Amino acid sequence: MGTKGLFITIEGGDAAGKSTQARRLDRTFRNLNRTTLLISEPGGISLGKKIRKIVKFSSSPISPEAELLLFLASRAQLVREAIQPALSKGIIVICDRFADSTLAYQGFGRGLNLDKIRDFNQFASDGLQPNLTILLDVDPIKARGRRKAVLKDRFESLNQQGVENNSFYQKVREGYLYLAKEDPDRWLILDAGLPISELTNLIWDRITRSFAV
Amino acid sequence: MGTKGLFITIEGGDAAGKSTQARRLDRTFRNLNRTTLLISEPGGISLGKKIRKIVKFSSSPISPEAELLLFLASRAQLVREAIQPALSKGIIVICDRFADSTLAYQGFGRGLNLDKIRDFNQFASDGLQPNLTILLDVDPIKARGRRKAVLKDRFESLNQQGVENNSFYQKVREGYLYLAKEDPDRWLILDAGLPISELTNLIWDRITRSFAV
Repeated sequence: MGTKGLFITIEGGDAAGKSTQARRLDRTFRNLNRTTLLISEPGGISLGKKIRKIVKFSSSPISPEAELLLFLASRAQLVREAIQPALSKGIIVICDRFADSTLAYQGFGRGLNLDKIRDFNQFASDGLQPNLTILLDVDPIKARGRRKAVLKDRFESLNQQGVENNSFYQKVREGYLYLAKEDPDRWLILDAGLPISELTNLIWDRITRSFAV
Repeated sequence: MGTKGLFITIEGGDAAGKSTQARRLDRTFRNLNRTTLLISEPGGISLGKKIRKIVKFSSSPISPEAELLLFLASRAQLVREAIQPALSKGIIVICDRFADSTLAYQGFGRGLNLDKIRDFNQFASDGLQPNLTILLDVDPIKARGRRKAVLKDRFESLNQQGVENNSFYQKVREGYLYLAKEDPDRWLILDAGLPISELTNLIWDRITRSFAV
């Protein structure tokens, strides 16, 4: 690989195992003496952490539109402060959630206009696209138990109150699958229910086949 | 006037006297037994206050793009939570800064694309336009002393460090004048240097001529 970095994002529902795979992938690259930057969205930088706190734990109401714009603000800063500078130094950037989360959650999930979100994403990300996006696909019904155990934030309580039958998470899942099938060159769809090590191997296999790492 | 409210915004550089005129206008309406809602942007609601704190006093870097998106997030919530519900009840809404601030500061001032901002403003404001916008026009050089005395936030320190000769504030001022001249039916341009009571009278005069208050 040349001096330009590689930008890999990991997407999927909550509790699909994204951060686990992100950490494992990070370790694999580091074992090969590659410099990496492992981040998660929203967060990763000071501004992102403040925004994450507002979006996830605010007791005051947040409209879908305001929520969208807060996520975008966090991304705009993350891209300019951390991701772009790292990529330009040839660093491998692994990001737990990125622009596709916005399309899946605020677009497919909350029903905001997809073209509008694509437009906003383009602006916030400064046109940056991941080289590879891994979708850890999970059935929301199956993931429910695990999600309840690990998460307790505004998203969860919102959806428990407002949306029955996991329909919000179902829409998010279908949105992800739609996006991934639309652009198979960029996406790798994996069944999040597979054993952790098998997922790690499948991800690494795809990376070594697609990129000269 | 009917049951539909009136939406009046006050714009202009920092320390132009916007909040003074907003309060005076509010009092005039209240003396006529009109119900009013007096708010300022960013802020006014719980989410807006949190965002205002981040934008104005953050010690961490905020890119122009992230700043724009934070202001829009605040506005999106303010419109849906406070302004639209008030207007639909026939309440007079007086807002110290609104969408035109974004065009003037982030567009003309920071140089972000104006059409993009108009598009984003439309989304954040849910298409809501003020019935009247008062521009308190002030020469940034003249306002400098007062601005220094009353303000000490990220904007001020940013511009003292990064922009010489008040050129940022000059661009903001020119932007406001451009916007106001583009749409004279909506805007009233006033010289902020006039005596406070005279400004109050000129504003009230325009309101009584334009609307059946």
